[in-house]
Amino acid sequence: MKRALVPGTFDPITAGHLDVITRAAMIFDEVVVSVAASKKKGPLFSLEERVELVREAVSDLENVRVISFDGLLVDCARIHDAHAVVKGLRVVTDFEYEFQMTAMNYELGPNLETFFIMSPPKYMYLSSSVVREISSMGGDVSKFVPPCVDVALKKRFGLE
Amino acid sequence: MKRALVPGTFDPITAGHLDVITRAAMIFDEVVVSVAASKKKGPLFSLEERVELVREAVSDLENVRVISFDGLLVDCARIHDAHAVVKGLRVVTDFEYEFQMTAMNYELGPNLETFFIMSPPKYMYLSSSVVREISSMGGDVSKFVPPCVDVALKKRFGLE
Amino acid sequence: MKRALVPGTFDPITAGHLDVITRAAMIFDEVVVSVAASKKKGPLFSLEERVELVREAVSDLENVRVISFDGLLVDCARIHDAHAVVKGLRVVTDFEYEFQMTAMNYELGPNLETFFIMSPPKYMYLSSSVVREISSMGGDVSKFVPPCVDVALKKRFGLE
Amino acid sequence: MKRALVPGTFDPITAGHLDVITRAAMIFDEVVVSVAASKKKGPLFSLEERVELVREAVSDLENVRVISFDGLLVDCARIHDAHAVVKGLRVVTDFEYEFQMTAMNYELGPNLETFFIMSPPKYMYLSSSVVREISSMGGDVSKFVPPCVDVALKKRFGLE
Amino acid sequence: MKRALVPGTFDPITAGHLDVITRAAMIFDEVVVSVAASKKKGPLFSLEERVELVREAVSDLENVRVISFDGLLVDCARIHDAHAVVKGLRVVTDFEYEFQMTAMNYELGPNLETFFIMSPPKYMYLSSSVVREISSMGGDVSKFVPPCVDVALKKRFGLE
Amino acid sequence: MKRALVPGTFDPITAGHLDVITRAAMIFDEVVVSVAASKKKGPLFSLEERVELVREAVSDLENVRVISFDGLLVDCARIHDAHAVVKGLRVVTDFEYEFQMTAMNYELGPNLETFFIMSPPKYMYLSSSVVREISSMGGDVSKFVPPCVDVALKKRFGLE
Repeated sequence: MKRALVPGTFDPITAGHLDVITRAAMIFDEVVVSVAASKKKGPLFSLEERVELVREAVSDLENVRVISFDGLLVDCARIHDAHAVVKGLRVVTDFEYEFQMTAMNYELGPNLETFFIMSPPKYMYLSSSVVREISSMGGDVSKFVPPCVDVALKKRFGLE
Repeated sequence: MKRALVPGTFDPITAGHLDVITRAAMIFDEVVVSVAASKKKGPLFSLEERVELVREAVSDLENVRVISFDGLLVDCARIHDAHAVVKGLRVVTDFEYEFQMTAMNYELGPNLETFFIMSPPKYMYLSSSVVREISSMGGDVSKFVPPCVDVALKKRFGLE
Repeated sequence: MKRALVPGTFDPITAGHLDVITRAAMIFDEVVVSVAASKKKGPLFSLEERVELVREAVSDLENVRVISFDGLLVDCARIHDAHAVVKGLRVVTDFEYEFQMTAMNYELGPNLETFFIMSPPKYMYLSSSVVREISSMGGDVSKFVPPCVDVALKKRFGLE
Repeated sequence: MKRALVPGTFDPITAGHLDVITRAAMIFDEVVVSVAASKKKGPLFSLEERVELVREAVSDLENVRVISFDGLLVDCARIHDAHAVVKGLRVVTDFEYEFQMTAMNYELGPNLETFFIMSPPKYMYLSSSVVREISSMGGDVSKFVPPCVDVALKKRFGLE
Repeated sequence: MKRALVPGTFDPITAGHLDVITRAAMIFDEVVVSVAASKKKGPLFSLEERVELVREAVSDLENVRVISFDGLLVDCARIHDAHAVVKGLRVVTDFEYEFQMTAMNYELGPNLETFFIMSPPKYMYLSSSVVREISSMGGDVSKFVPPCVDVALKKRFGLE
Repeated sequence: MKRALVPGTFDPITAGHLDVITRAAMIFDEVVVSVAASKKKGPLFSLEERVELVREAVSDLENVRVISFDGLLVDCARIHDAHAVVKGLRVVTDFEYEFQMTAMNYELGPNLETFFIMSPPKYMYLSSSVVREISSMGGDVSKFVPPCVDVALKKRFGLE
């Protein structure tokens, strides 16, 4: 049985994240979405809220579980007995940072493979930070996020 | 059972290619290495030679098969009932071209996932063309290729 | 009256090119699509064929003219009294080459502005070369090109 | 009549910004320079100061107006009946972020075209943040900014 | 006698920094490692601690001196009569920022050459920030830093 | 005594190349400009012509010698007892290719340092291929090349 981690801050989960998770779930026997605490980033949603929104967004996918974690990705993979990490790729800058982290992870946890999965072009330029920025200014982000996130963002920014 | 294609020209197969195939073989039940005809590129080794060198290089990997193909990658995946394509990533330029092809493939064969796998830094800057160039000038490429390829390159360039 | 050149090889014109031309035609009073001879590239379609396909593709756009040219872009702009060059942008690599040419053009023809226009993500990864490659292997490119180009490609590759 | 927005934080306006505005003013009938509040960035100059410095810097350009805005760019464009957004391009990283925002804007305000204009190489590596950094350390930035900004920076950093 | 500056924040010095300093020391008669105050970055280690760790790390290199500086790099070079600045290069993003600063430095201090030196691939993806992040989560960074830094990080994060 | 190689095809030498050679000559005791045969590229000028044009262009620089070479750069460095390779950097794409070759060279000739030197922005977008292209179409390239090259290009393209 092959198990993959899909790690991220998911602040909040977007349609692009959901696309990556769905694709991973078609290939791997089990997918563990790992929501990072990311305290330093000062996230908009609390860790509990982010986990809850991811859970609601992936509720249709049978072989997907959602957990939170605070620490090194390689340790998280070891604990959950995951053989691979799957990440979505968006733009080039992104990629370089991922390269850097993946290269370090190869040193720290040599038995963990990192796969990058490409989303279709329509999700390529989507990010949680852009979604937060647009929503905070009253823009409509319903095309870019699962319905539960749309509701949560409107509540957060008092747009309802 | 999950089957992945690892496509390429493999002119010739390098230690970096072998690393990607080995990693893919740890995750997927079966890996089909698909050697593209790539006639337009005027390859150094014939399609038959390239297939033969890949076969020799992967002979220790039980769940890896080697085939040749001439046509669209999405058709090759359909014929071999592969659910995923796995490609190695080296440098950024590469990545952009891969983006382009993958975006097209999503249109042409929507049920085929493309995963990019990262090699460790030591293979990041390795490519068949650099290996050919160095070998053609008499340089020692034994660190960069499987032993059978080292022999084949020396023979090809009359270095023995 | 503001006139813009949209230069390119257009071998053949794609849906992405057409998108750029349409956007330019909404801003400028007149758009002159300038099909470059590009003999060195050994184009698939002759200059006359390429001009003809562009003409057919833009026939609905009233303020768009199509010409062929062989020489320096700055000279072409001078002859046609164009104040601006409009180019589509796809991927980063592209961009760097465009930077290089635009920087040279600023030296050669200082009164000519170069604008880059972004296509929506679905066209971002589309290029004439990818279209030619897919079509030559029997793939369906009807989503990526105007109908007249689809017909021309099928005829060229004997796919009908 | 074609109207373009040139948006930015302009903290402070540099010679590169002025070059982009001047080029846009040669092509469009009217240019509206839109100074973003950008409170989150903790700007060096207040919104009022930034607007004032831009106004002084563009005072010779007859078809250029300066406004401030706080919100979504697409809303600002709608209010001012602008058909296009014109942005300067500097380096590649920049470009990727612009891609992301422009792709989102296409979804949010589909009738707004985004043009990127290239500055000559000498302005390519100029940015407000580098100007602020150099000036804060007592460096001479008079080559990189309009005279009114040079005065304002010296006053701000007590260099006079 | 040729003297080069190797500037940086060194928060903390990594094996990659040490590699660049060592390579510079093989080419230049004297190398001055210039530790920037970088107060704005809110460094993990104080300026004094960072200087001390660099000094310990380079103690075997006879023609290397370590200083601290707070101000413009071009002024630092002038004071220490340095003819060149040597910087390590890691990833592409990096490079663009360096381009920007170097272009500005050419204007500010035209007699100062900037050389970029490439580290071997194994150091390519190493950075102080990644080291800090991994260490703060209890990961082992002993492969990535000089021994004195490993000790200092463990003490700082209470890992001993 | 520190000796550096400045390798290239120099087809033909541009003002940007000359800038890099001049900067290298200010730092190193001796600079050996190494003109590569590059037969595969089908150069416009013969190896002899290219060497001759470089020699004329650098005739004012006392510590610069010009040689031709055909083979591996690391062998050329060994023969000429050079401790370093100095290359100019232009754009990002370039840089990635250079990374690849430099990484290979570290394996092939571990005692050879590679330095990249940045030209001022005005030379950043200059390349031999752009110069050849513009000149072949009758454009004026006198700003971009040494006078002897301007004469040679005009003769070659029958522009006199």
